[in-house]
Amino acid sequence: MKIAYLGIPGSFSFVATTNYFGTAHEYQGTNRFKDIFELVNEDKVDAGIIPVENSLAGSIYENYDLLNQYNLITVVGEYYLRIEHSLLALPGSSASSITEIYSHPKALEQCSLFFERNKSIKQIAATDTAAAAKSVAEVKDTTKGAIANQLAAELYGLTILEKNIEDDTHNYTRFLVIMKQAAAPQDANKCSVVYTLPHTPGSLCKTLQFLADHNLNLTKIESRPIIGKPFEYTFYVDFEFSHEALSHLDAIMSDFRKATRTLKVLGFYKAGKL
Amino acid sequence: MKIAYLGIPGSFSFVATTNYFGTAHEYQGTNRFKDIFELVNEDKVDAGIIPVENSLAGSIYENYDLLNQYNLITVVGEYYLRIEHSLLALPGSSASSITEIYSHPKALEQCSLFFERNKSIKQIAATDTAAAAKSVAEVKDTTKGAIANQLAAELYGLTILEKNIEDDTHNYTRFLVIMKQAAAPQDANKCSVVYTLPHTPGSLCKTLQFLADHNLNLTKIESRPIIGKPFEYTFYVDFEFSHEALSHLDAIMSDFRKATRTLKVLGFYKAGKL
Repeated sequence: MKIAYLGIPGSFSFVATTNYFGTAHEYQGTNRFKDIFELVNEDKVDAGIIPVENSLAGSIYENYDLLNQYNLITVVGEYYLRIEHSLLALPGSSASSITEIYSHPKALEQCSLFFERNKSIKQIAATDTAAAAKSVAEVKDTTKGAIANQLAAELYGLTILEKNIEDDTHNYTRFLVIMKQAAAPQDANKCSVVYTLPHTPGSLCKTLQFLADHNLNLTKIESRPIIGKPFEYTFYVDFEFSHEALSHLDAIMSDFRKATRTLKVLGFYKAGKL
Repeated sequence: MKIAYLGIPGSFSFVATTNYFGTAHEYQGTNRFKDIFELVNEDKVDAGIIPVENSLAGSIYENYDLLNQYNLITVVGEYYLRIEHSLLALPGSSASSITEIYSHPKALEQCSLFFERNKSIKQIAATDTAAAAKSVAEVKDTTKGAIANQLAAELYGLTILEKNIEDDTHNYTRFLVIMKQAAAPQDANKCSVVYTLPHTPGSLCKTLQFLADHNLNLTKIESRPIIGKPFEYTFYVDFEFSHEALSHLDAIMSDFRKATRTLKVLGFYKAGKL
């Protein structure tokens, strides 16, 4: 298989991809989420992997918007990755020799307590944690460090000076696996949908009651205001279901559609382990 | 009045604070959200202002957690600020002379298209957009720029080289105003609550039906998994109500509490304009 992901080898998306699919595949790194969708849509890769939410930073709306736009692409899998940040540097460096640290802006932000303890270290934004590690390996300057994961240290020949420098250890990113025109996997037990509602009182409750009545167990609900349309919302909903329900779900979703104004079923897949 | 906010004069929190309260007050900048809660809780300031969600980045869970922890602090106001990023530099600089740009990691991220067009410019992370502007003003180096708002340019004597360099113009941050042991304002028409639910089917729907039955109009719902407790969630819910309902709301919320496992009413306040 050929699978598209964000970044370069060693990025968190790359780690999620190899953990989910195993290493015996061909991987194609991209610069933007949209590129992943394009590659899948044009059959240039067999699958893609995209982050959709982080336990600290919340939902990544951009990928939900892309899932909404590409009608032939469906979600076929889910994977949770624990986000761990390490301080990497050239072999022979020591923590006290580091004066500049490169990383993705979000990773720098997630290590704010480390930088509070090391106020003299300059933080420099890179496009990606793995790209930061790669550039530190290339410049061969022992005063420069990178914040990235441990696989990046291995891939680019860097030493780990300090492990787990993230502020909050409850940091998980949820990834979805996407394919084009794929059937629901036989072991699917979870579904993601995006919908809007008519302007009638109780319309949200009606949809949730419908799910409950069909033994579909809500695992996420999030309203997102539609900017420029006050009091209109998009709802992101995930639910889990029993194996027996799988064969009826297409029919159930047809009924569910009647309770919504617009409904997009993003896909059926096996729930990942958190 | 004395009001605590995050950052230094010119930060987005500062802009929200002066827009909401006017300029005839004393303002105290802080380094952390927790400091704002401490200052309010110890009566060292009369009010504080905190961001709770951004239209692109989602909810800021840290401030919800702090609202949950400080029992004497309540929400008394709401303010929406449009987030606009400009490229600032020393008077006499030109766009072509800039080789390094300083800003908050999130602001750098939100100007990714600008950096795609200007690949040779180095991005350097600062603690705050306003702090970035201030440091550029202090170093007096025409090769350095900052991404910050227009008020920061004015406050620190910088020139605006390019306005609105943010990728997405639908970028709003929602702020809440907090005070200690404050009564609900007379013009309150909105309420924020945080609750958890018993493990019974339909418990979420029951709470939403309760709100609908009392003509309380849901404007936000978000589930947040409780990490380490699979299948348990915290719900963040906002609703609006008519002026007539205000005097009954304490009684209504007492009834609402019975439908939840834990409930925290964060406060009653006048809805901000989006």
